[in-house]
Parts: sequence; C-alpha cells; structure tokens
Amino acid sequence: MSKILVSGVKPTGRPHIGNYFGAMKQFVELQNKYESRIFVANLHALTTVQNKEELLRSSREIVLDFLGIGLDPQKTTLYYQSDVPHVAELAWIFESITTIPYLMRAHAFKDAEAKNKEINAGVFNYPLLMAADILVHDADVVPVGQDQKQHLEITRDTAEKFNRTFGETFKLPEPLILESVATVPGTDGQKMSKSYNNIIPLFATDEEIESAVMSIVTDSSSDVPRNVYAIHSLVRDKSSLDKLYEEKKGKYKELKEALIGDLQQFIGPMRELRSEWAARPDEVDKFISEGGMRMREVVHKKMVDVRNKVGLIHHE
Amino acid sequence: MSKILVSGVKPTGRPHIGNYFGAMKQFVELQNKYESRIFVANLHALTTVQNKEELLRSSREIVLDFLGIGLDPQKTTLYYQSDVPHVAELAWIFESITTIPYLMRAHAFKDAEAKNKEINAGVFNYPLLMAADILVHDADVVPVGQDQKQHLEITRDTAEKFNRTFGETFKLPEPLILESVATVPGTDGQKMSKSYNNIIPLFATDEEIESAVMSIVTDSSSDVPRNVYAIHSLVRDKSSLDKLYEEKKGKYKELKEALIGDLQQFIGPMRELRSEWAARPDEVDKFISEGGMRMREVVHKKMVDVRNKVGLIHHE
Repeated sequence: MSKILVSGVKPTGRPHIGNYFGAMKQFVELQNKYESRIFVANLHALTTVQNKEELLRSSREIVLDFLGIGLDPQKTTLYYQSDVPHVAELAWIFESITTIPYLMRAHAFKDAEAKNKEINAGVFNYPLLMAADILVHDADVVPVGQDQKQHLEITRDTAEKFNRTFGETFKLPEPLILESVATVPGTDGQKMSKSYNNIIPLFATDEEIESAVMSIVTDSSSDVPRNVYAIHSLVRDKSSLDKLYEEKKGKYKELKEALIGDLQQFIGPMRELRSEWAARPDEVDKFISEGGMRMREVVHKKMVDVRNKVGLIHHE
Repeated sequence: MSKILVSGVKPTGRPHIGNYFGAMKQFVELQNKYESRIFVANLHALTTVQNKEELLRSSREIVLDFLGIGLDPQKTTLYYQSDVPHVAELAWIFESITTIPYLMRAHAFKDAEAKNKEINAGVFNYPLLMAADILVHDADVVPVGQDQKQHLEITRDTAEKFNRTFGETFKLPEPLILESVATVPGTDGQKMSKSYNNIIPLFATDEEIESAVMSIVTDSSSDVPRNVYAIHSLVRDKSSLDKLYEEKKGKYKELKEALIGDLQQFIGPMRELRSEWAARPDEVDKFISEGGMRMREVVHKKMVDVRNKVGLIHHE
C-alpha cells in the first residue's frame, strides 16, 4: 500500500505563478508517489473570510485551480474539509490536552498577534485543527515548506501527548520538506506577491500575459534584463535560455516577446484544462462529494477508536 | 408548542444533598413546564478528566443520578453531548468570530488562570462550546445559577455576532434564574462541599445517613442545635420543624434521631428508584441513545442552515 499524504490548501483567491512554482506544482508530482488526500481548508478559511459568497466562490475556484494544473481526481482525493466535520470534534479533544502557553508559542499566532491584538480564537486554535486534519488520517507524510515546519511539530507533539495519555492511537507523520524553490520574482524584481501588485496570474489569458511581461521593470545598465531573465528561467531550461539571451543581447523587446511566447505556451494548456473542468461543474461536484464521503468513512472509523480511547460514548 | 429548555450537566462524581437542593431538583420541576433537553457534558468534562474509565463511569452514573431524583425520560430528553458532535464544529465556527480578548474576560477562564497558569485550551474555549450546545437547539431558556449568568451572556453575544455577520440564524435564549436556594450547610456548619468533607450523599444508605448525621457538629451553648436544624429544615416544613425543636429542646440525640428518620424517608425512595434504573442498564442505554439520535436529527437540520449561512459546502 502506498503511503498516505495529507495536505490542506486554503482558498485564497486567484493564484499566480509564484504560488505554482512555490508549492502547487509539487502536489501534481506527489500524487504519483503517494496516496494523496488534498482538502480545501474552508473551516480554516473562516478565520479570515466571513462572507458566504466569497467563501463558496473561492472554495470552488481553488478546486478548479488544482484540476487545471493537473491534479488527477483518479489519483488524488480532493475534498472539502467541511465534508469531514469530525476534525472539529477531534480538535476539541486536542484542546483539552494542550496548554495555552504551549499554543502561544505557535508562530502563526505570534505573527497575527503582532499585527492585530484583536485576533480571533480560531487563529489561536488553528494548529490544533490542523493537527486533527492530519492525524485523523494516520498520514505518513505531510508536505511542508520551511515556514510550516513548526506546525507539523505541533501535530507530532499532539499525537505523542494523546498517545501517552490515552494509549497508542495516532501515527506520527513525517514532514516532506518541499524541494526548495528559489523565490519566484515578480515583475518588479521583488518576491512575487499579490500585495506587491507584481504578479503574473497562473491562468492568465494571452493578453494578461502580454501586459504583465511588458510591465516587467528593466534597467539598461546591463545587456541582460535581470527581471525578465529570472521569470523566464522558470519556463525554459537553462542552456536554451542562456543561448537565447546571448543571441538577443541588449534586445529587451525581443527578449520580452520570447518570454511572452514561452509563458503563453506554458500557461495555455493549464488554462484550457481549467476551462474544461469549469464547464463541467456537475462532474467536479460529483467526484469532490464522493471524495468527501470516502474520507468521511475513513475518518469515521478512526473517530470510533478515538472516542473509545478517551471514554466518549457515541451511539450510531 | 412548549418552549425549549437546554442544559448541560457535568459528570463530577457522587452528588450530595447540597447539589440536589442547589440545582438538580429544579430540573425535575422544570420538565413539566418546558420541552427539556438535558445533556451529560462529557466533551466539557474532558478538560478535567483525561481517563477513559473514569469518564465512562461518571457519565453513566450521572444519568442514574438524574433518573433517581425523578427525571422522567418520557418528558426530558436525556442524552450524551458526545452523541451530538456537531457542537464542536459549531464551536469552531464561533471561534472564528470571537476575539481572544473577549474570551479572556470569561470568569471561568480567569478563575482557572488564577489557580494554574498551565490551563488547557479547552478551558479557554469552554464558553464557545457552551454557546454551541445551547444555540444549536434554538433554546428558549437556559437555567442558570447566579454564577453562570456571564456564560449565558457570552452565548447571547455570540448569537448576536453570528446573526449580524451571516444573517438571522440563532434565537437568543433567555436566562431562567434558578430559584435562589439558601446555601445548603454541611455537617460542620460550613457550606456543604466535597472538599470540606462535610457532605450527606444524595443516595446515601441508611447507615451512611446515620453516621453523617451523628457527625454533625453541635455546640451546647443553645437549646437548638443550629447545624442539625439547618439540615433538617431542608426535609421538613417549617411549622412542623419548629414544633419538633420546641418539644425536644436541648435533646440533641433525639433531634438527630428525628433528622436521621426524616432523611431516610426522604432519600430512601430516590435511592430505590436509582437502584431500579441501575438494574436495567439496557433500558437506560436504549432511551439515552434514542435521545441522542433524536437530538442529532434536530441539530443536523440546524447545522444545514448554519453551514449554508457561512458558506461551508457539505454533501450528505
């Protein structure tokens, strides 16, 4: 049997190629190696989105985004977190064995606190819902970026604490450190980020690609336009890229046009695939609801064991 | 249709007559006036009991305690909180609209914090699980002692906040302030409390009653043994009581014997009733599981509405 991989993705609006190269892409590769279970973390999203339409829309969009980049519903179980509400019950059980000072050490909470004293309790308890999301599956591996390592440590600590208190129950998941991707530069040379307004949308139209590339900031102090080259290196292999930039030395316009062409070729098929899925909402809903129900069965079994271990009576 | 009353009772071990006169008794009276839904708060209990056998035992015992005092399963729906785990999901939703500073003002948390800095997160989030327990039923009234008034205020605040954010959804429950009962004195004249070791168990055997009454502290400075009289006044009406204490002035032993007789007469039938129920565990389990399932249906409907309001997709 393959090892189980679990990961949650937060619905956060239209992705850009920085999100793609930074993390999304890897889920497509991992689905061939693991039994992958990817959920749309809509319960988590509630801590920031308190608007029905926005949450519904972004939840559905992110499913299409992942289908667009090539997540295969035959290989990956894609589902909504809200289809497995047992995780909230498990999070409550974890809350009863986790101290406040321990939780306070979580990075996410510290960051949020630094920005805004009036953070909500959900942000504070976030790591325990995350622990429940993972542990309830007996996940073997959890893909993590360098900045999420602590959350997986909290998950592992929580599993250990539970096992020590109530008897061996949860598997300790291993981190799968995502292949380190150089920070994707935006059109201004800074890190690509919505807040810097320097992005290239992942499913951009040909026109959007063109206008984004044309807006790339170049300085004329060098023969090679650094920002253009950096983005270009994401979609063309190095030897071919260097050959091109050698040939077109100093010809910024032509280099930008070449990048436009390569990006259109790269993004086009994904945009097409996404559109195809978007045109079949019933089919998408069918496999995502089936995925949810399948996961609910798995999780249900685990929760029977958990409730039994802690002494919670539950009649079916 | 009758108004809906909801209350949770925490499984805390063998009750004494102080618990009975202080609160338990009133549930028996209220079941004739309201559609009563009383749950054994075993999810809440997890914050203090982390032992499977103890939680199971105390959960089952408290059901027998309430049946013993006359709670009628035909009138009151008695169920385990863990049979309605939706409340944990609802509590999570509430956590996302409740700020940390707001929760910090909760009395229970402040008390716990004062005693022990290492309190668990469950204690901190307690009021929101309580709010979920109540609001998910669209309860009309919630019986509260004077010291629990704040928790109902948190519940009402939470309902208002949710309704304001996501649209009219929850009914605002009214407090039903429990008829103020004079503090029940223990055998030493202090408030009856397990921690003072001065209790008379609610379901005491005749021998336990005798030895407890014999241990009542008297002082010989007065014709009327104050502590004996105080306990006696709980189980005999005032005029008859005063007549007795006038007749037996100074005769401490005889007065104690009279109290023993009255307590035995008062406690005996409840102890019998409890034993009868205890002898039929299958029958008890049957109606408590049916109660749980009935409540699960009610709560399920409400959660369909709630999820719809916040934008959480859930497939059945």
